Amino acid sequence: MCAKAKTDSAKDQLMTAIAPQVARIEDVMRQDLEEALAGADPLLVEIIEYGIFNGGKRLRPLLLVLAAKLCGLTGDGIYKLAIAFEYLHAATLFHDDVIDRADIRRGKPSVNKKFGEIAAILGGDFLHSRSMFLVGSHAGAKGLDIFCRATNAMVDGEFLQLRNARNHNLSVADYYSVVKGKTALFLAATCEIGALVAEASPGEQRVLAEYGLSLGTAFQIVDDLLDYQGDAGQTGKAVGNDFQEEKMTLPLILALQSADTSDKKRLLFLLQDEQARQNGIEEASSLIAKYHGFASSRGQAEQLIAEAVSALSIFTDTSVAHFVDILRALAGYVLSRNK
Amino acid sequence: MCAKAKTDSAKDQLMTAIAPQVARIEDVMRQDLEEALAGADPLLVEIIEYGIFNGGKRLRPLLLVLAAKLCGLTGDGIYKLAIAFEYLHAATLFHDDVIDRADIRRGKPSVNKKFGEIAAILGGDFLHSRSMFLVGSHAGAKGLDIFCRATNAMVDGEFLQLRNARNHNLSVADYYSVVKGKTALFLAATCEIGALVAEASPGEQRVLAEYGLSLGTAFQIVDDLLDYQGDAGQTGKAVGNDFQEEKMTLPLILALQSADTSDKKRLLFLLQDEQARQNGIEEASSLIAKYHGFASSRGQAEQLIAEAVSALSIFTDTSVAHFVDILRALAGYVLSRNK
Repeated sequence: MCAKAKTDSAKDQLMTAIAPQVARIEDVMRQDLEEALAGADPLLVEIIEYGIFNGGKRLRPLLLVLAAKLCGLTGDGIYKLAIAFEYLHAATLFHDDVIDRADIRRGKPSVNKKFGEIAAILGGDFLHSRSMFLVGSHAGAKGLDIFCRATNAMVDGEFLQLRNARNHNLSVADYYSVVKGKTALFLAATCEIGALVAEASPGEQRVLAEYGLSLGTAFQIVDDLLDYQGDAGQTGKAVGNDFQEEKMTLPLILALQSADTSDKKRLLFLLQDEQARQNGIEEASSLIAKYHGFASSRGQAEQLIAEAVSALSIFTDTSVAHFVDILRALAGYVLSRNK
Repeated sequence: MCAKAKTDSAKDQLMTAIAPQVARIEDVMRQDLEEALAGADPLLVEIIEYGIFNGGKRLRPLLLVLAAKLCGLTGDGIYKLAIAFEYLHAATLFHDDVIDRADIRRGKPSVNKKFGEIAAILGGDFLHSRSMFLVGSHAGAKGLDIFCRATNAMVDGEFLQLRNARNHNLSVADYYSVVKGKTALFLAATCEIGALVAEASPGEQRVLAEYGLSLGTAFQIVDDLLDYQGDAGQTGKAVGNDFQEEKMTLPLILALQSADTSDKKRLLFLLQDEQARQNGIEEASSLIAKYHGFASSRGQAEQLIAEAVSALSIFTDTSVAHFVDILRALAGYVLSRNK
């Protein structure tokens, strides 16, 4: 079997394994929003439904459910908490797209493009508030504490990113700080809270937080790779978008660190000169590839995924082996995904 | 003693009575933000401090403290919860000023004007998140439920207002619906949660929620009156701002309902025609006054304040008479305030 077919088959198996959970997440979100939006302005209802039911991967609620079940939680009460993590994720996308003036999200007009900035700000506030309510109600003060630390880290990560905008000397450490705040800590919080509500031991909670942190970091690196190397038809985003916005992601940072003086100068020129930038994405990609920027980035993502998978080895009870398998497969999927 | 001097003296007495609580609110906010912002991006710290320590009246945390003390709560633990209501209020102002593209807040550049829209959106998100955390930690799931219903009503009220923008036929009922969602329900929630954490009876909780609802509604009517009749030097806002934005507030709605055909036509022309509107605020004010739009609005605010004051009569215990007096004086202040 060729590598591609093997990946596809692993992906199919994973999708089959998680299908019941994903379907339940969709159902519980529909029920909850019906309740939360009862009597609300019709435009608010439309915006929330448009922004939530958009073919998202539901990675965050899924992680929470799996982490809780891995730690022995039974029953379906966990889903009401799980959806909070999708709401908060959607709320950040609503606001991020306003901030980035992004017109497209998952191949469709973004909420701000379709309904306007005001609607996107307020819709995000609504989901933010609902998510906090669900976490406070279903994960207690301790869960809310972990959750809020992560949401505050997101805001802080955005500020760090703003501060570093157009800083062409961004270090790898700075890149990882932004990724940690904006993406990874929230996935860590998701897994940790899953373990918390399952009343797992502090050691298990810590291990699951580490799993989420590694997974989330790798997820973002792959996102940044797809921005250069993805198929726009699959990702729903234009190729080279980050480069056009002078966004310093890992492949570019690593290439700039390794390039000789003349190639570094050329790469910076392509990045800084508006006209060169517009036509220079292919040349820039070649230069990044020449200095192994893509391969090294992928190597770092692979290393993180290996760490995530290895962290799970403390869960040896055969009764939860099914969930260990799914979390391992999910980690593999993060590496192989093409959208 | 003339009426003005009497009002001033009542105000001085009130300010003296609440000074210890207001000082404590400021202190606890400084301590809490120092903790919450430890290690955060310096720009985020600057934005939050600028937006919070701006000479605000601290009405919301004050109401919470007073409601709790009225219901017998002792000690100072309540302040950590109280400041959440100022944070949420500030978060809504951050986002509202982005939405309204407002440049001025309390006579100074608004957060969006001074730091940009992105900073205002993210700063608002930070405060929103922190407020939910504090409520969840200090008022439990029940308190968070009341709080989130109120924040969701705010978003819904904004949508209702957007839907009604430039609807010159707005009814009094529509006006009250927006005021309830955007302002009054949050003050009701503030008072109710104060009673809740003091473990007051359901009846006392309900009465305090009613007090907050009446007070909040009157507060907004007075705000809308000040927009026409205030002193820009005192309010920090240009006179006639609402009229310039074609915002249908109670004085205008009531005048349009009572005016004869020709005056109604003239008032609508002044409102709808851009050039007429810019020079027509004095004429519009005269027409509103001719049909008692200001006097009737004030009458409705006075009625609401009378209801708020009367609701408090169930608290007959002499040990809390001091707090009943302050809440009554606060209600009186809402009517007499000039900024």
